Order: sequence, then C-alpha cells, then structure tokens
Amino acid sequence: MIDKNEMIFGVRAVIEAIEAGKEIDKILVKRDLQSELSKELFEALKGRFIVVQRVPVERINRITQKNHQGVVAFISAVTYQHIDSIVPTLFEEGKNPLVVMLDGITDVRNFGAIARTCECAGVDAIIIPAKGSVTVNADAVKTSAGALLSLPVCKETNLTETVKYLKQCGYHIVAATEKGDRLYSKADYTVPTCIIMGAEDTGVAIERQAQCDELVKIPMLGKIESLNVSVASGILIYEAIKQRNEL
Amino acid sequence: MIDKNEMIFGVRAVIEAIEAGKEIDKILVKRDLQSELSKELFEALKGRFIVVQRVPVERINRITQKNHQGVVAFISAVTYQHIDSIVPTLFEEGKNPLVVMLDGITDVRNFGAIARTCECAGVDAIIIPAKGSVTVNADAVKTSAGALLSLPVCKETNLTETVKYLKQCGYHIVAATEKGDRLYSKADYTVPTCIIMGAEDTGVAIERQAQCDELVKIPMLGKIESLNVSVASGILIYEAIKQRNEL
Repeated sequence: MIDKNEMIFGVRAVIEAIEAGKEIDKILVKRDLQSELSKELFEALKGRFIVVQRVPVERINRITQKNHQGVVAFISAVTYQHIDSIVPTLFEEGKNPLVVMLDGITDVRNFGAIARTCECAGVDAIIIPAKGSVTVNADAVKTSAGALLSLPVCKETNLTETVKYLKQCGYHIVAATEKGDRLYSKADYTVPTCIIMGAEDTGVAIERQAQCDELVKIPMLGKIESLNVSVASGILIYEAIKQRNEL
Repeated sequence: MIDKNEMIFGVRAVIEAIEAGKEIDKILVKRDLQSELSKELFEALKGRFIVVQRVPVERINRITQKNHQGVVAFISAVTYQHIDSIVPTLFEEGKNPLVVMLDGITDVRNFGAIARTCECAGVDAIIIPAKGSVTVNADAVKTSAGALLSLPVCKETNLTETVKYLKQCGYHIVAATEKGDRLYSKADYTVPTCIIMGAEDTGVAIERQAQCDELVKIPMLGKIESLNVSVASGILIYEAIKQRNEL
C-alpha cells in the first residue's frame, strides 16, 4: 500500500517539491504529456538524477482520483546521502569501515530486514542504485524497525563508478554469488570492506562481479539453490563482525 | 489472504475431513454451537490434538458467506510428522542430527524464510507447537521456496516434553535469546543439536530457557535490540554448518 502522504500530484506541485530539494524516489509522467508547464518540469529535473518513468495515464489514475495533470512524484521516507561524503568522514573518525551495497534489491521487506541487520551490526552505510532498486517508503522503514531513520543510505547513479571509487579508497570488495569460487567464511572482512548483495532474481550484476576482489558463496546443502537475500546478507555481515571482533 | 481451497465449511464436511485424516491446522467453532451433529464433531475430535477455537459467529461470517453452520476448518498445506518418529530414523541413518524448534513464531513470511534456510542448510526437521504458532498455509510454502514440501515439520502439543525427549536422546539444546550469557559462536553445534528460536515479540518461553544447555546471543552493536528472527535463525544455523564442516 502506498501512503497518500508520500505522494505529490500535479505539475506545479511537483516542480515546487523538486526546487525545494525534497527527496523524490521517482516521478511518473503520463506518456503523452506535453504542455508549457511540463517543459518547466523537465527543466527543473535537469541535473538532478531523479528517475522519471513514462506510463499510460491509466496507471496514474489507479493511484489517485485527484487532479494529477499526468504527474505524480513519490517522496522518499529517508534522506539520501552520497558515498563520497561518507567515506572521508569514516576515515577521519578512525573507523574500519564496513558498507553494504544492494545491487538491485526490489522487495521492500527484504530491504527493510537488511537495513535492520546493518544497524544491529554497526554497518556504516547502505548503498543502493538510483534506478531499478527498492522504493524506500514507510513500509521499508517499518520493516527496518526504524533502522532506516538513522543508518545512512546512499543512492548512487552508477554503481560501477561507486565500486571503482571504493577500491581507490582501499576498500576490499566482496560479492555474494552462488557461482562464487570461495566460501563466504574464507574471505577477509577485517580491512575496510564493501559487501555486495545481488537482486532477488538475477544476483549481483555481471559487470560488478568483474570488479570484485572476492566472489563468495554460502554452501547450499539441500535442493533449493539460494537463501532469501536478507538471510544471506545477515550471514555475511555477521561473518564480518565475527572476524573483526574475533568472536 | 486465506486461500478458499484451504478451508472446509459445515459440520458434516469437517467431520468427514477429520475422519479422513486430513491435516487440519485449526477449527473455528461458533461460541454457542449446540446440536446433535456438533456432538458428533466433538466425538470425532477426541484424541486428535486438533486446535479448536470458540469464536463469535461474526468472525466466521467474515471468512465466508457460505452456509458454514458455525464451523470452519483450516487445512494445512503440509503433512506434519512427529519428532519421536523422526529422531530414531536420523540415528539409524547415521546422521549427526540438527533440528530447529520455532517457539511461537507467528509471521508466515518469517516462518517460510526460516524453512528455506533450513532446507538450504540440510537441517533435518523443524518443530513447531500445535498452539500459538504460525498457520502453515500456501503463503508459507511460497515464501519457503518450496522447502516446506520436502522438509519434515513436526507439530508437537507440548514443547517442554519435546525438549525433554530430545535431551534424553542426547541432543544439545541451544536457545537464542538477547539475554543469553554466551556468544552464539561459542556454543557447540558439532553434536546432535536442537536450536530454539523464539517468537517475534516475546522470544523463547522462560520455562524452555531453563531446559537449555546453552543460552546464546548475537552481538547487537547498534541501537535496535534484536534482529529479524529469520535473519537471526540464518546466522545461528550457518554457524552450526560452519562448525560441523570446519568451514
């Protein structure tokens, strides 16, 4: 269910929200929208990395009966940060950073459960892609047991670039994949580390796997091929905590 | 949502289902039901350990508009087994058994995710209480990725007796609780083991904690007090797998 408080309707209202710097997850625009005002909307969007989806007007009609003028914006329940403002701070604070990248996770409950695990384990930040990822709405915040209100979430437009940046900063990149050539418990998490977890269906993107220092797998002893992604995340994150604290 | 195929309505139909040995999760009976036929129903229920709940007729009316005669039975999506028929078999097969007891978990998705983890880790059986536990319905089977169709699920009427029995059979009983005095990674899972996970809200029942050989905790490094129970289960179960396979 979408909470009505999380949406803004109408071209003018959406333009104002953008210009006020509100966190917008995505904007739905009816396919054939053309007006002077809509030009203003696209002008306001320039350089902002907000996802815009062209959809049939019926889809917007199903969301609201209000006079939406073919435009609806979804407001994010959290304030996003950027990884390049977080990484230097973590080093300055003398931390041995641990960050978790979610490469295309779309299920709100999985995302919330992972955020909760991250908070419980003292993970420093979650990184998600701007496109093709979960909508961080009130349901996600609830499932996270409030973790999303304090844990930094970084929304990045290009995860390949983000991984490149983390490597330059000395991060060890460990991705979980069923095709991994090492057991998850054999990877080294004691140095600055980024753990990458893949989408529920397709896993970690191939181009990202090539960037990783280690591709690790969790042993599967039954017939089912993979764990739920929030469970798998918990196993890897707590393996890191164990190694770091010699538990 | 309850799948209509998972319910049986009407006194006669429910009696027939009971006598045919169908797996019934519970039966709702309207509070003031009294008839010759209802006596037959209670006769059929004798000695069967099927949970019967007396409810206001309005509750049954909300479930169905059919002529339910004040009785509705919920059919289980899985066939339950009994732990005392499984334990001897495991020993005969030369296995080093690992079983997981879910002490009052009520969320269907959590239950499904835990069952999936159990299947992936080669756990030998899941034990749930007959009362106050999850309804193993089609949603649970789906969330389990089908695990519930092959993994033995034991529904026991008295978990205290079940734990006693497992201890007599030489099982090491390890319960997860935030108040545990040992780290989860310091427990011994290399012997025949039963891991007990508690309800989402109240945790492992106090009387059960007193029966355990070890009460273990997962370190919480943030502000949130506990992990999602399916994530916590995954961390403990895979710690056992690691120890057993020296990973």
